[in-house]
Amino acid sequence: MRTELVRSIILTAIMVTFASVASAAGPIKLPEPRTDGGKPLMQVLKSRVSMRSFSDEKLSPQMLSDLLWAGFGVSRADGRRTAPSARNSQEICIYVATPDGAFLWDAQKNQLEPVAAKDLRAMTGTQPYVGDAAVNLIYVADYSKIGGGGGMWDMLVGADTGAIFENVYLFCASEGLATVARAGIDRDALARELKLKSDQKIVMAQSVGYPKK
Amino acid sequence: MRTELVRSIILTAIMVTFASVASAAGPIKLPEPRTDGGKPLMQVLKSRVSMRSFSDEKLSPQMLSDLLWAGFGVSRADGRRTAPSARNSQEICIYVATPDGAFLWDAQKNQLEPVAAKDLRAMTGTQPYVGDAAVNLIYVADYSKIGGGGGMWDMLVGADTGAIFENVYLFCASEGLATVARAGIDRDALARELKLKSDQKIVMAQSVGYPKK
Repeated sequence: MRTELVRSIILTAIMVTFASVASAAGPIKLPEPRTDGGKPLMQVLKSRVSMRSFSDEKLSPQMLSDLLWAGFGVSRADGRRTAPSARNSQEICIYVATPDGAFLWDAQKNQLEPVAAKDLRAMTGTQPYVGDAAVNLIYVADYSKIGGGGGMWDMLVGADTGAIFENVYLFCASEGLATVARAGIDRDALARELKLKSDQKIVMAQSVGYPKK
Repeated sequence: MRTELVRSIILTAIMVTFASVASAAGPIKLPEPRTDGGKPLMQVLKSRVSMRSFSDEKLSPQMLSDLLWAGFGVSRADGRRTAPSARNSQEICIYVATPDGAFLWDAQKNQLEPVAAKDLRAMTGTQPYVGDAAVNLIYVADYSKIGGGGGMWDMLVGADTGAIFENVYLFCASEGLATVARAGIDRDALARELKLKSDQKIVMAQSVGYPKK
């Protein structure tokens, strides 16, 4: 009996460990993005705005999928994206911080790869609202993909990020979501939590959520 | 008679000189931009593309006005624009190079201020197509408006430019125009022609025109 109990405990422990590792480490597949709708472009441009006040309402997986696709999704069979990048280097990755953890968005597979099991939202900026937003997008440049650093490359990495966050701004204007992009981030601390490599640099972050009523 | 003839010639010469100076130096008012139309946002995002082949067809003043407004136009009564900028510094100016000359776009007045009376299009990039595009937009950052230079500011200036050129990309996708942004520019030579001050720095350029059939 004792042996069986011990065996059962061990088995249960193994199963629990396996299940929790699997749920923490397994990628989360997002629904197919809806790539046809939205308001007319000029109206969207007219209503684009930075908002710094968010409700605690979450984004649905569908909305998150649409948002990420609008930002930097794969839009063509040759792998090209909704935003351009210098020499098509596609050096910007989007990390997604939610109450459930932090994830790296794999644009090709349209899935979220877990990178941290805790809520990092408050670390993505210096102002209190960042912790309220349903998601915080963190734009990370991989300098190994562009073959260099320095002034001109910082500018280009900035430009490639700007094109993505503007797509997100416009998506939010079209969908009635609140958003704001910023550069004020505790980069070193957040880079550690996201387990970034030395070639990877946080460029900017952007909060997205429903506006506070 | 001779005196009258001389007087008449001198008077004519003065009038011709005055007229040509006025037409070269006077601002060109653009039509009110149409800020309501365009294709649905997601379709526009799906069709955004870089094109490097342009016909010699010009843009109408209305199309140029709509294009510039989409890029970085004044969209709200408080002077806010269609693209965000770091701390709302609005440090990016758009210069416009056409066959008729180069102009600084005054976004508030929506008019083109002449800065050079010659065709500078071929100087806005290193590849031959840039000389064919109906207009080349030149994004110039005024570092005196952001109070500093250096790596972080280069990145932010890049980001602010990226948001503007992405708006232009999307406008072109919506209107069937060809466009491509680039950083490869002979900056020193172009800065001299545009009569830039020491605080002003060329960030990127973007060709816009009708696609070559």
